[in-house]
Amino acid sequence: MKARVHVMLKTGVLDPQGEAVRHALGALGFTGVEGVRQGKVIELDLAEGTPEETVGEMCEKLLANTVIESYSVEIV
Amino acid sequence: MKARVHVMLKTGVLDPQGEAVRHALGALGFTGVEGVRQGKVIELDLAEGTPEETVGEMCEKLLANTVIESYSVEIV
Repeated sequence: MKARVHVMLKTGVLDPQGEAVRHALGALGFTGVEGVRQGKVIELDLAEGTPEETVGEMCEKLLANTVIESYSVEIV
Repeated sequence: MKARVHVMLKTGVLDPQGEAVRHALGALGFTGVEGVRQGKVIELDLAEGTPEETVGEMCEKLLANTVIESYSVEIV
């Protein structure tokens, strides 16, 4: 089974990487880009039957810094 | 409107970041993690009516290195 984890900076936390992308898109001539947020996506290849809660635990312990980042787990 | 872009390393391209995560999960006692791939997710806040092709162009020109990375665009 596969699980996909999205880790994004929480709203209000400054995202310099996203800002850099926004500026670069503007410089390339793309108009109408109002905001960019960049995060991580982690695809996990897990043993069959791993419960979703285990993936949540992985996020809490390693994958996300829950002080500034939020995460979502999706079983695919 | 919002668009979400996923950028992942192509299959066969070495992913040291993903490997590091896999080892760390093992060290934390999580068993059954057979593989980890790490990529980027970019959330774009765009002007209404921006066509999906424009987002594809942004990926080709800036967001993804198409030599080693593949991308997918999702309008949300």
